[in-house]
Amino acid sequence: MRHLLTLVTLLTFSPFVSAEALPSWTDGPTRTAITAFVEDVTTASSPSFVPPAERIAVFDNDGTLWVEQPMYTQLAYVIDRVKALAPAHPQWQEEQPFKAVLTGDLEALKASGMDGVTKLLAATHANMTTTEFERIVSDWIASARHPRFDRLYTQVVYQPMLELLDYLRANSFKTFIVSGGGIDFMRPWTERIYGIPPEQVIGSQIAMTYEVKNGTPVLMRKPEIAFIDDKAGKPAGIQQHIGRRPILAFGNSDGDYQMLEWTTAGAGKRLGLILHHDDGEREYAYDRESHVGRLSKGLDDAGSKGWVLVSMKRDWARVFPSAPEGSTGTPSDRHE
Amino acid sequence: MRHLLTLVTLLTFSPFVSAEALPSWTDGPTRTAITAFVEDVTTASSPSFVPPAERIAVFDNDGTLWVEQPMYTQLAYVIDRVKALAPAHPQWQEEQPFKAVLTGDLEALKASGMDGVTKLLAATHANMTTTEFERIVSDWIASARHPRFDRLYTQVVYQPMLELLDYLRANSFKTFIVSGGGIDFMRPWTERIYGIPPEQVIGSQIAMTYEVKNGTPVLMRKPEIAFIDDKAGKPAGIQQHIGRRPILAFGNSDGDYQMLEWTTAGAGKRLGLILHHDDGEREYAYDRESHVGRLSKGLDDAGSKGWVLVSMKRDWARVFPSAPEGSTGTPSDRHE
Repeated sequence: MRHLLTLVTLLTFSPFVSAEALPSWTDGPTRTAITAFVEDVTTASSPSFVPPAERIAVFDNDGTLWVEQPMYTQLAYVIDRVKALAPAHPQWQEEQPFKAVLTGDLEALKASGMDGVTKLLAATHANMTTTEFERIVSDWIASARHPRFDRLYTQVVYQPMLELLDYLRANSFKTFIVSGGGIDFMRPWTERIYGIPPEQVIGSQIAMTYEVKNGTPVLMRKPEIAFIDDKAGKPAGIQQHIGRRPILAFGNSDGDYQMLEWTTAGAGKRLGLILHHDDGEREYAYDRESHVGRLSKGLDDAGSKGWVLVSMKRDWARVFPSAPEGSTGTPSDRHE
Repeated sequence: MRHLLTLVTLLTFSPFVSAEALPSWTDGPTRTAITAFVEDVTTASSPSFVPPAERIAVFDNDGTLWVEQPMYTQLAYVIDRVKALAPAHPQWQEEQPFKAVLTGDLEALKASGMDGVTKLLAATHANMTTTEFERIVSDWIASARHPRFDRLYTQVVYQPMLELLDYLRANSFKTFIVSGGGIDFMRPWTERIYGIPPEQVIGSQIAMTYEVKNGTPVLMRKPEIAFIDDKAGKPAGIQQHIGRRPILAFGNSDGDYQMLEWTTAGAGKRLGLILHHDDGEREYAYDRESHVGRLSKGLDDAGSKGWVLVSMKRDWARVFPSAPEGSTGTPSDRHE
């Protein structure tokens, strides 16, 4: 009887859930900073208490929730997609930026500039319905593998971050992705992998038009960038989608600087975190000089801004989830 | 003991909640259409069962959740705001469209066209931070009253719709607003009044820029329309914000036509509803000829599309919540 009452109380009041939920985080000041913050904002008697509805936590995706080296996963998708479509477009063998992609000529790819980006976007992300794009991404992500780890991309997500997402949700936080990546490139798999449903994914967007084709309504994806959710775009994306300021932000590059700044400048207790990729053995080591996920200003200012620098090497007991060879990349069933 | 077990089961499995939650809906085919649909999609053994995460319901706001006659509430805000600001702008006494607003000259206001709209937007909605706008709207909505009903605008929301929102959420639906109105004009009060948090409000948007002013980060509202969430914009807004197709849509005007069309064209069981304002005595009677909330194509096509036409006169036992004179307009505490 007492146990049942306790259970009912737990189910009803969702009190603070302890740090035992973060087994892949090493015991130390970083984990303590996280758990102390969560305990503080979820304890009703605390002066820093935050009502559940306002417990908004935002996470960058590339380099924060999953691996972004040696290239953004979305770029790997573009390359694979161009190769898959090439037989139907023989002219691509001689036409940039497609030739550069097909021959792996990164210099020529860079040289194609915004014109190249627009052409690749048109060929791989647009001129199709939202439903078609969702299916293409779902099929690709179910089989494409990371070149170094030889795992599905959805298996090179970070186990400590999966635990943190779960831990925050167990403490009545609402977790959002705020990524520079394409919003509809992430949505087909974020709920299954991160427990983050499509309506809590914010990202860069292309234009869409609503059309009725032969009696069937469709949303056509247009080869035109409508919103870039990076740097100063991240606070704007947060306001557009969430409409209130987060109390926790977690990023890893200077593209996340403004999101961290906007989050932690709010009134009351706030937590900003930056993942520092300093573990070349288990993952990658990069910061100021990296072409992907450059972190320089964030490193300079973390101390004065009060942001927690998370060391992958020191703070993470483990990097990736266990995943049997050839599994479908579902670490567990997660729903919020 | 058995009661506690039942309670635990209820808390854990969130089964179908019955129609007793819709007391302001008269017993008849409309209420039955709603409850039969909800029972069908929430019953695990039903072939039409929809998992909770996919139970997305979208609602227009003006004329669907609250009164939109004799003018959109947001236009009433614009007029009040211009009047409040006029002493500091003496030139407005002779300058259009401000002169038209100040003298109540609707013809001159219309004649000012898009140029007029842009100027009014700039004066009443932009050139300030998101925080400032939120405070101004909050102050205004706390005291402005509907001219006919002499109630706060937040007290001329529809009681049957409040019950429907609660009923859907009790059945694990996630409820969203999809309005042609300004997204940040609604967010300051939708959680308190409708139980719909800011992150589940979709609407028209103006551009924002992120700036750091004297060390304080702000989002500045720019006098430039970034997105119009009306007609064909509604399915696009739904995709941008939610990323999956709703299973229930409720509107009242032809501005909601594409939202209903997009929702109900999806696979599986779907429900589209149109509120028909046919009750001039308790509220307003208008459809094909109205300057606000025109409903014509929706009336023509509801039958062939299978959309339920909700008659305010016939289907609603009561229109507004009870609210003591001078109350603050909070019908109840709602949270999801």
